[in-house]
Amino acid sequence: MIVDCAHYRDGQRQHEGAMELGRAADMCLEDDGFVWLGLVDPDEAELSDVQARFGLHDLAVEDAQTFHLRPKIERYEEGSIFFAVLRTARYDEEREEIDFGEVSVFLSQRFVITVRQGAASDLHGARLRLESRPELLKEGTVAALWAILDTIVDGYAPVTEGLERDVEEVEATVFSGAAAPTERIYLLRREATDFYRAVHPLLAPLEALQRGAYLELSSELREFVRDVNDHLKLINEEVVALRDLLAIVLQANMAVISNQQTEISVRQNETMKVLTLVATIFLPLSFITGFFGMNFLWLTDHIRSFWVFAMGGLGSLALSCGTLYWWFRRAGHIGPT
Amino acid sequence: MIVDCAHYRDGQRQHEGAMELGRAADMCLEDDGFVWLGLVDPDEAELSDVQARFGLHDLAVEDAQTFHLRPKIERYEEGSIFFAVLRTARYDEEREEIDFGEVSVFLSQRFVITVRQGAASDLHGARLRLESRPELLKEGTVAALWAILDTIVDGYAPVTEGLERDVEEVEATVFSGAAAPTERIYLLRREATDFYRAVHPLLAPLEALQRGAYLELSSELREFVRDVNDHLKLINEEVVALRDLLAIVLQANMAVISNQQTEISVRQNETMKVLTLVATIFLPLSFITGFFGMNFLWLTDHIRSFWVFAMGGLGSLALSCGTLYWWFRRAGHIGPT
Amino acid sequence: MIVDCAHYRDGQRQHEGAMELGRAADMCLEDDGFVWLGLVDPDEAELSDVQARFGLHDLAVEDAQTFHLRPKIERYEEGSIFFAVLRTARYDEEREEIDFGEVSVFLSQRFVITVRQGAASDLHGARLRLESRPELLKEGTVAALWAILDTIVDGYAPVTEGLERDVEEVEATVFSGAAAPTERIYLLRREATDFYRAVHPLLAPLEALQRGAYLELSSELREFVRDVNDHLKLINEEVVALRDLLAIVLQANMAVISNQQTEISVRQNETMKVLTLVATIFLPLSFITGFFGMNFLWLTDHIRSFWVFAMGGLGSLALSCGTLYWWFRRAGHIGPT
Amino acid sequence: MIVDCAHYRDGQRQHEGAMELGRAADMCLEDDGFVWLGLVDPDEAELSDVQARFGLHDLAVEDAQTFHLRPKIERYEEGSIFFAVLRTARYDEEREEIDFGEVSVFLSQRFVITVRQGAASDLHGARLRLESRPELLKEGTVAALWAILDTIVDGYAPVTEGLERDVEEVEATVFSGAAAPTERIYLLRREATDFYRAVHPLLAPLEALQRGAYLELSSELREFVRDVNDHLKLINEEVVALRDLLAIVLQANMAVISNQQTEISVRQNETMKVLTLVATIFLPLSFITGFFGMNFLWLTDHIRSFWVFAMGGLGSLALSCGTLYWWFRRAGHIGPT
Amino acid sequence: MIVDCAHYRDGQRQHEGAMELGRAADMCLEDDGFVWLGLVDPDEAELSDVQARFGLHDLAVEDAQTFHLRPKIERYEEGSIFFAVLRTARYDEEREEIDFGEVSVFLSQRFVITVRQGAASDLHGARLRLESRPELLKEGTVAALWAILDTIVDGYAPVTEGLERDVEEVEATVFSGAAAPTERIYLLRREATDFYRAVHPLLAPLEALQRGAYLELSSELREFVRDVNDHLKLINEEVVALRDLLAIVLQANMAVISNQQTEISVRQNETMKVLTLVATIFLPLSFITGFFGMNFLWLTDHIRSFWVFAMGGLGSLALSCGTLYWWFRRAGHIGPT
Repeated sequence: MIVDCAHYRDGQRQHEGAMELGRAADMCLEDDGFVWLGLVDPDEAELSDVQARFGLHDLAVEDAQTFHLRPKIERYEEGSIFFAVLRTARYDEEREEIDFGEVSVFLSQRFVITVRQGAASDLHGARLRLESRPELLKEGTVAALWAILDTIVDGYAPVTEGLERDVEEVEATVFSGAAAPTERIYLLRREATDFYRAVHPLLAPLEALQRGAYLELSSELREFVRDVNDHLKLINEEVVALRDLLAIVLQANMAVISNQQTEISVRQNETMKVLTLVATIFLPLSFITGFFGMNFLWLTDHIRSFWVFAMGGLGSLALSCGTLYWWFRRAGHIGPT
Repeated sequence: MIVDCAHYRDGQRQHEGAMELGRAADMCLEDDGFVWLGLVDPDEAELSDVQARFGLHDLAVEDAQTFHLRPKIERYEEGSIFFAVLRTARYDEEREEIDFGEVSVFLSQRFVITVRQGAASDLHGARLRLESRPELLKEGTVAALWAILDTIVDGYAPVTEGLERDVEEVEATVFSGAAAPTERIYLLRREATDFYRAVHPLLAPLEALQRGAYLELSSELREFVRDVNDHLKLINEEVVALRDLLAIVLQANMAVISNQQTEISVRQNETMKVLTLVATIFLPLSFITGFFGMNFLWLTDHIRSFWVFAMGGLGSLALSCGTLYWWFRRAGHIGPT
Repeated sequence: MIVDCAHYRDGQRQHEGAMELGRAADMCLEDDGFVWLGLVDPDEAELSDVQARFGLHDLAVEDAQTFHLRPKIERYEEGSIFFAVLRTARYDEEREEIDFGEVSVFLSQRFVITVRQGAASDLHGARLRLESRPELLKEGTVAALWAILDTIVDGYAPVTEGLERDVEEVEATVFSGAAAPTERIYLLRREATDFYRAVHPLLAPLEALQRGAYLELSSELREFVRDVNDHLKLINEEVVALRDLLAIVLQANMAVISNQQTEISVRQNETMKVLTLVATIFLPLSFITGFFGMNFLWLTDHIRSFWVFAMGGLGSLALSCGTLYWWFRRAGHIGPT
Repeated sequence: MIVDCAHYRDGQRQHEGAMELGRAADMCLEDDGFVWLGLVDPDEAELSDVQARFGLHDLAVEDAQTFHLRPKIERYEEGSIFFAVLRTARYDEEREEIDFGEVSVFLSQRFVITVRQGAASDLHGARLRLESRPELLKEGTVAALWAILDTIVDGYAPVTEGLERDVEEVEATVFSGAAAPTERIYLLRREATDFYRAVHPLLAPLEALQRGAYLELSSELREFVRDVNDHLKLINEEVVALRDLLAIVLQANMAVISNQQTEISVRQNETMKVLTLVATIFLPLSFITGFFGMNFLWLTDHIRSFWVFAMGGLGSLALSCGTLYWWFRRAGHIGPT
Repeated sequence: MIVDCAHYRDGQRQHEGAMELGRAADMCLEDDGFVWLGLVDPDEAELSDVQARFGLHDLAVEDAQTFHLRPKIERYEEGSIFFAVLRTARYDEEREEIDFGEVSVFLSQRFVITVRQGAASDLHGARLRLESRPELLKEGTVAALWAILDTIVDGYAPVTEGLERDVEEVEATVFSGAAAPTERIYLLRREATDFYRAVHPLLAPLEALQRGAYLELSSELREFVRDVNDHLKLINEEVVALRDLLAIVLQANMAVISNQQTEISVRQNETMKVLTLVATIFLPLSFITGFFGMNFLWLTDHIRSFWVFAMGGLGSLALSCGTLYWWFRRAGHIGPT
C-alpha cells in the first residue's frame, strides 16, 4: 500500500497529498528534485510494479519483502542505487517484549522508496523532520536517508529506557527476596540480545555513511549524520551495559536464593533442636515411670515405703533431668553459646 | 562416483545427461565454456584418475578425501586453480543433532569439480539454480562457485531454525520447573559450537570473494555473492546469539533447580514443625500419665480421692498443655507470625 | 548562569572579575588572545543568546543541554569550532554511589565556552591551573582544553579510590562470613560499569588529541596532554580491574554462602544423630517396661518372683541396650569413627 | 648427543649413517647443498662445540637449552641465521596428561641444526618425509623446516583426539549422575590450556612463513607450508572449542550435583513425613492409654463397667484417630494431592 | 639517596666508587661516554637538584615521585630525553602477596638516571650485567636501558613461579575436600590481576623498543632486547593462563562444596531413616502395651487367661511388627533396594 508519495524540489514539498505512482516515476526521469515514495507491507504485485518503474535490483526487492534481516546499507553498483535495511523497535511494557519492525530504503539521486513492515516503522515523523529543515532537504535524497535514520534511532531510546526500567524492577524484586524472578531476568536478557542484534550491525555502515564512504555529504549534513551516529553509539553502549547487568543480576539472584536456603536451614535446625530437646528429656523420664509401672510382684513388693518412692521414683527422675542438663551444657545445645 | 558432468557454454548446458570423464577433460583443453564435474564419495582410484586428467594439486586432492576440515577458499598459484572446502549442515530434529557434510570444489577457468561427502551435501539444487540464471552462467566457473555457496548457505537456515526451536522448548521446560534438562542444554550448546565452527571460518574468505580478491566478478555477480555473504553473516550472528542464550539458560536452569530445593526445604520445615509440635505436646503428657501409673505403694495410697485426681492428674496435664502453649506463642512456632 | 568570563592574552588574564557577555563576544572579533566563558546550568534563553553571539552549531548546543551523553571530542568543520562532552564524577561514600556531571566545551581559536551540569563539574580549578602556567596559556584555547581535561581526569582518581575502598570492605565482609552482601556487590558492580562508560569512550579522542589529530600542539603542551592521557589510561585499567574483581567477589560470595550451608547441614546432622540415638535407646526400653505393665492376669501371675524380675525385667532391658550398643558400633554411629 | 648428521645435495641424501661433526661444519663452508645435524638433549660442552663450529648466537643457544618456552620463529640478522622454537606434544591416555617436548631449530642457507628435548620430539619422521620428496628437498634448508613443522603439527592431532575422547567420557559420567568428576574436568581444562599455549603462539609466525616474510619459498613449497598452517589452525580451533566445552561441562556438572541434592531432599522429605505420621498417630494414642493406666483410685473406681471402657477407652482412641485423619486430609499430608 | 654514580666510556666503567653529583653533570656536558646515576627513594630536594642539573621535564620528575603508575616508555621531544616507568615485583611466599616496586628511568645520549622505589627494585644486578658485556656497553645509554629491563623482567619469573606453586597448593586443597579455600583462591586471583597490570602494559612499548621506534639499536643489541621481549611475552601468557585457571578453580571449588553438601545430605538421610524405623516399630508396640495396661475393670476382667494373653498381648504385638515389615518392604525402606 502506498502511504505517501511526494515530489521535493528546492528544499520544499511541491504538493499536498500523495502523488500517483506512474507520475512519480516519470518525475524521476524528467524533472529536477526527487520523489519520496512510502510503501507499507506492499504485496508482491505492488512491489514488482514499483521495481519495474524504478529499475530496482531483484535481490534488494527480495530483501525488502523478507523479515528479520540484519540492518545494512549497501550500494548496487549498476544504476548507482543504494539499499538500506533498518530495524525499528518499540518496547511493549505490558509483555516486556520488544516489537521489531523493518524499513527498507531504496535510494538514488532522484528517488527514495521506503518499504515498511511490522511495528514502530512509521516514517511520517521522518518526512516532517525533513520538511522542517529546507536547507538539508535541498541536498537531495541523502537528506531523506538522514531523516529516516534519525527517526528510527530516536525510536530506540524508549526501548532502552523501558528495558532499564524493567531491569530496575527486577533488581528490586531480587534484593527484596520476595520471589526468584529467574524467568523474567532470562527473558529480559533475551530481549536485550535481540535488540543488540538490531542495533549493533548498523554501527559500521553508519560510521561509513558519516565518513562519506557511500555518498557525498555537505559538511552541514555530515554533522547531522554524526549526531545520529552519536545516538546510535550511546544506545549500543547502553544495551551492552544492560546485557552485562542482566548476566550479573542472574548470578546475584542465585546468591539470594542460596541465602534463602541458608536461612531456611537455620530455622529448620532450630526446630530440630527443640524436637531433640523434648525427646531427650521426656523419653528417659517416661522410661523411668514405665519401669516402676511394671507389674513384677517382687518389684511392687519392694517399692512400698515413702522413702523408696522419694529415692527410686522422684530421685531417679531428678537424676535423669540433671544428667541431661549437664550433658546439654557441655555439648553446647543449651545455655550461653 | 560421478553424479553429473556437463559442459556449459554461452549461458546454457550443452547436453542432457552426464558426459564421460575423458570427454570432459578434452573439452577443457579444446572448447570454449566450462565443464562441471560432480563426484560423490569417490574412491581413491576415481579421484586420482580425475587428478591426472585435470592436473589437480596433491594437497588439494588429499583434503578433498579427508573429513572434518575447516571451511576455506584458497588459490593454488601454479595452474591458477582455486580450491574450496565448504561444510554442509542438516538438522536432525529427532536426535537434536546436526549432521555435517563436506563439499570440496576445484575451480579453474575451464572446469568446476565438486566432491561431496556426508549429509546434506546434494548439489543438484546448485546446478538448477545456476542453469536458471543464464546471465550469470555466462560468467563462467565463478558463477558455479556462487551457486554452490548459495545452496550450501541456504541450507544453514533450517539448522538455526531447528536449534532455535529446540532452545525454545528447553526454555519452556526450564521455566515450567517440570524437569532439569541440563543434559539437553549442554548437548544443544555443543551442537551450536560445532555449527559455529562450520560457519564462522567461511566469513573471511567469502568477504574476500565478494571484494574480488580471488577472482574477477562482474558487478552483477558481485551482488549475488554479497547476498550469500549477507545470509552467512546473519546465520553467524544467530549462532553466536544462540550460544550465548544457551549459556544463560544453563545458569537460569541452575537457579530454577536451586529454587526447587528451597521449596522442598520449606515443605520439609513444615513437616518437621508438625512433628515437633506433636512430640512436644504428647511426650510431657505421657510422662505425667506414666508418673501416676507407677506402682509405688506410698504413691497409690496418696492418690485415692477425687480431688487428688482432679488436681494431680487432670491439673498437671492442663498445666503442661498451658505451659507449652505459652512457650510456643513466645517462640513464634504457632499463632500469628 | 555565567560564572566567570575572562580575556586572556600573552599568557595572562587581562582583568579581575567576570566580563560582560556582549563585550566578550566583541573581544573575539577584534582583539588578540582568547575569551573563556563559563556557564552553569544555563537556561534556554541564555544559551541561545550565547549561540547567536558566538556562532555555535545547533546540534552542539542541543547536546550541551542534554544529560547522560557519551564523552566525545568532535570538530564542526564550518567555522572550525571544536565541541567536547566530558563527564565529571564524584564518589558519594555514604550512598556508595557515583554522582555524574557533564561539561560541554565549545572551542575556537578565539574562545572557550564551558557549560557545566550536575555534580563535581566545577571548573574553577581548571582556570587556576591554566593561569598558573603562563607558558601554556600563551598557546591559546587548546591549553584551556588541556586544563579542563586535566581537572576532570584528576577528579576521577578519588572515585576509583572510593570504589576500591568499598570493594575491600565488601571482601572483608564476604570472608568474615558475617553476612552475604550480594546486593552491595551488585550495586558496586553497577556503579563501576557506569563509571567505565564515562571513562572508556574518552580514551580514543584523548589519544587523537595527543597525536595532534584535532589541533596543533606545541611539544610542551603535548607532554601535558600525554600526562592527562596517562592518568586516564590508568583510571580505565583500574576500573576494568575493579569490574573483574567484583564479578569474582560475587562468585566467591556464592561459595561462602554454600559453605555456610554445609556447616549448618553438618550441625543439623549432629542434632539429628542425638535425637536418633535417644529415641533408639529409650523407645525399646519403654516398650519393655510397657510390656510388663500390661494387666493380663496370666502375665502378672507368672512374674512374681525375684528371678523373673531380674531376668525378665532387668535382663531384657540390659539386652536391649547391649544389642543397640553393638549395632551402633557396627554402623559407626557411635564409637571411634 | 648427535642422532643423525647428513649432507643433502640435489634433492638427495649423499651418504648412509651419521657424518662426523667436524666434517659437517667443513661441508657448510666448502660444498654445495646443506647439512642437517640432529641433536638430542645435548650437554653444554657438545652445544658450545656446535655453536663454535657453526657460529650460532649466544641467546639462541641459551634458548635451545632451556625448557617451557613459547613457540617462535625469529631471524638473527647477523649471519642470516633463523632460529625456531617448536613445542611437541603427546597425549598420555593413562594419566590424561599431555607430555610436552621442545624442538629448537637453527637454520641457515647451508645447515639445519635441530635440538630435541623431552617427549614426542622425534624428528626421524621429518627426515624421511623430506627425503621422500626430492623436489622439495632441492629447495634447501627451508624444506627441512617445512618437514619439521609438518611432523610436529601432525603430532598435535592425536592430542586433540585424546582430549576429545576424554571430554566425551567426562560428559557421559556427568550425565549418568554416577559421580561428580569435578577434579577430572578441571585437570582436562588445565591440560587443554597448556596445549593451547603450545599451539596458539605458533599461528602468527607460521602465517608469516607462509607469506614468505622470513624466507623465499617456491610456490610449490608454499602450498605445503599452507597445508601445515591449515592443520595448525584446525588444531587451534579444536582446542579453543574444547576449552569452551570444558567450562560448560563444569557448569553442567554443577547443575547435575544440585539436581542430586534436590532428589535427596525429596527422599528425605518422604522419610520425614512417614516419621511425622507415625508419631502423630501413636503419641496421642499412647497418651490416652497412659491416662487410663494411672493409679488414681477415684479414676479406677469410676472406670469399672464395660460401657465406660467402650466409651472412655475405645471411643477416645477412635476419636483421636478420626481427628488426626480429618486434620491430615485438610493439611494435605495424606490423601490425594 | 644516591646509591651509585659512574662514568662509562669505551665499554668500561671509568672509576671505582660513586662519583659526586656535580661532577657527573659536568661529565655529561664535556666528556665522551655516559653517566649512570642511581637514586633510591630521593627526597624532593635531591630530585629537584638532579632535575636542575640534568634538565629533566617537570612531568617526568613528578611521575618519578609518585607510585602505582602504569609501566610506560615515552619520549620528551624537547631535549630528546626518554622516560620510562617500570614496575618491579617480588613474591612474598609467606603472605602470598606480590610486593611491587617502581623504577623510573631518565635516558639521554649522555646520561641514565634511575630512581628506585619500593620492593625488589635493586638495580645493582643491572649494572653488573651491563659491565660484563663491554660490547653492548659501548653502544651507550640504550644498553643500560636493556640491562635494566632485562633485570626487572628476569625478576618477574620467580613471581609467576610462586603464584603457580600456590595455585597448585590450592588445587590440592580443593580436591582433597579438606577445606574450602575460597578466600585464598580469591586473593591469589587478585594478586594475579595486579601482576597482570604491571606486566601487560609494558608489552607494547617493549615491542616498539625492539623495532627501533624510540632509539637506534645495533642488530646485536636488538637481539638482546628481543630476548627480554620474549621473556615478557612468556610471563604475560603465564599470568593470563593463571588468571583463567583461578577462575576455573573457583568454580571447581564451588562444585566440590556442593558435593560435600550432597554427601552430608545422604548421611543425614540415613540417620533419619534409622530414626523413622525405630519410631515406626516401637510407637505402635508401646501403644499396644499401653492399651493392655489400662485400668478399666471390664478390660482387666476379660484378659485373665493365658490364651487371651497369647492372642491379645503377644499376638497383637507380632501382628504390628508383621504389618510394618510388609509395609516397609513394599515402600522400599528396608530390604533389597
